[in-house]
Amino acid sequence: MNTSLDTVPRVAVVGGGSWATAIVKILCEQSVKIRWWLRKPEDVAHISHYHHNPSYLTDVQIDTHKVEAHSDLKYVLSEADFVVLAVPAAFVQSALQGIDSEDLQGKVIVSAIKGMIPERNILVTDYVEQYYNVPPEQLCIIAGPCHAEEVALERQSYLTIAGYQKETAERFAALLNCRYIKATVNTDLYGVEYAAVIKNIVAIACGICHGLNHGDNFQAVLVSNAMQEIKCFLDTRFPLQRDVNSSAYMGDLLVTAYSQFSRNRTFGNMIGRGYSVKSAQVEMNMIAEGYYAVQSLYQVNQKYGAQMPIMEAVYKILYEKKSAQKEIDKLRKQLS
Amino acid sequence: MNTSLDTVPRVAVVGGGSWATAIVKILCEQSVKIRWWLRKPEDVAHISHYHHNPSYLTDVQIDTHKVEAHSDLKYVLSEADFVVLAVPAAFVQSALQGIDSEDLQGKVIVSAIKGMIPERNILVTDYVEQYYNVPPEQLCIIAGPCHAEEVALERQSYLTIAGYQKETAERFAALLNCRYIKATVNTDLYGVEYAAVIKNIVAIACGICHGLNHGDNFQAVLVSNAMQEIKCFLDTRFPLQRDVNSSAYMGDLLVTAYSQFSRNRTFGNMIGRGYSVKSAQVEMNMIAEGYYAVQSLYQVNQKYGAQMPIMEAVYKILYEKKSAQKEIDKLRKQLS
Repeated sequence: MNTSLDTVPRVAVVGGGSWATAIVKILCEQSVKIRWWLRKPEDVAHISHYHHNPSYLTDVQIDTHKVEAHSDLKYVLSEADFVVLAVPAAFVQSALQGIDSEDLQGKVIVSAIKGMIPERNILVTDYVEQYYNVPPEQLCIIAGPCHAEEVALERQSYLTIAGYQKETAERFAALLNCRYIKATVNTDLYGVEYAAVIKNIVAIACGICHGLNHGDNFQAVLVSNAMQEIKCFLDTRFPLQRDVNSSAYMGDLLVTAYSQFSRNRTFGNMIGRGYSVKSAQVEMNMIAEGYYAVQSLYQVNQKYGAQMPIMEAVYKILYEKKSAQKEIDKLRKQLS
Repeated sequence: MNTSLDTVPRVAVVGGGSWATAIVKILCEQSVKIRWWLRKPEDVAHISHYHHNPSYLTDVQIDTHKVEAHSDLKYVLSEADFVVLAVPAAFVQSALQGIDSEDLQGKVIVSAIKGMIPERNILVTDYVEQYYNVPPEQLCIIAGPCHAEEVALERQSYLTIAGYQKETAERFAALLNCRYIKATVNTDLYGVEYAAVIKNIVAIACGICHGLNHGDNFQAVLVSNAMQEIKCFLDTRFPLQRDVNSSAYMGDLLVTAYSQFSRNRTFGNMIGRGYSVKSAQVEMNMIAEGYYAVQSLYQVNQKYGAQMPIMEAVYKILYEKKSAQKEIDKLRKQLS
């Protein structure tokens, strides 16, 4: 295919972590122009000089013919057809400070973030829609079971692009399909995005239970019940015919709940072993997405009342300082 | 509770492996009388003298006030209210040789076997019903995610007793409930039993893919697709309102598919790494249940035509000597 520079899709990637780096790598398999926003000018300089992210997936070679790293967000967004948001949910507001609706106008906004805006208890796509007037048909998310580390190794992975408008989702999915990525589309944006948020909470629960010395038998029951809990919440909040056993929902849950490397699981494990929330956070030097997500979801669900005993146990342990041992003991009587 | 010997439930446990040993341990938490059949008289003698199974879960203390080990099956079955079958599916026919309908008359038969009778392509409960005239209302199975090793450690585990007649299932479930076991009941005996059979095939598929160097992202998609495949088969074969995300179906799948110790997964892993079926079996010194199950299920499904690409790939690799690499390559294009 003869693609002149003018017709090559232009993508802005916002965020400098491992998932952002993996997405840049995947997009580079296609004929695209990428502007990549990283907060720190020294990271931008490192990538420009050494063609590697200095901090995450450092083995991934960045093709600087296709990728221009920059720390000026307005510049990165200008001219983009697609904007991929890939910063932690807690930093979305600060990352987008100084940006207004016009900067996003006419662009497809793709959230790769699996979390909620902590101060507002809303999904990232809701935030972009409400605060930047992006119309729903221009919103998508990237979901699916995908450790960035395995993308770096080019291991076969599957992504789901969910968007209210199928055609928009398909346009972005086409940019991701390559020899090691299969991207499919789905129109249940809200359902998939919420499922991705909840699975981080479940991973914390798995970690807590592991820390309390529960084994694989218990974990299997916990994850099965979590799958039912996700379905219950989605059916209550957004009734729709959906198959929660699809990879976008169940696969994403599994890859996180069974990962030894999940930050959420590690955080939970420390809580289960008796660390306080603060000391676990200090020790990890980062805050797990699920920590914020459970507070937001707990508050959202006050209104909807879906049966979510696992989510509630995690909330009580993390935010009401309830004993992990006692809460999980109560929970294990509720599970079946 | 004052229970005289006459009213104490009498259970026969048939089989000397780790799952049989775990079940004996669980039952001993209650007031019961157990006769335990083991094939080898020397194992019987060892248990009687040393109060341990010499070969499996050797740490589990057997309470010989409640348990009488014996190698005469007719003696073991006589007087039993419940008969628990816990030998590998491939040995059910030979284990029950010499037994006739009368020996099982009036007893509740509980299969703890997750496999099919290889020569007949039928479930174990079907075999007992058809060849020993046990009426369906006296049949149950023990299902649920449960590594015997974790039962030995008294880690919280959940079992599902499925039976056509709820009351029968409840009677047996009551014998299992104890401080580390929660047993619930279900009337979808056929569905739960087939799901348990299929999950061993899925575990082989997981092993093959691991052996071929696929990672956790792929495994999550494989297991999600397997869940859909199980649902598709059950809905085709036995249409019924069932929640496949219950622990009896999904939990059982997870504990096997994600276990590093599963024989089925280990067997698959060797196949994926290039061993022939024969050499993998010789190396392992045992035959994984899923090896037989896939042949039976493949033949059963010829009639029903449920979409089962994972099961078919495993069948072709194991029985038609197709290249694992090529079959999994084809499969990965079908998954989403």
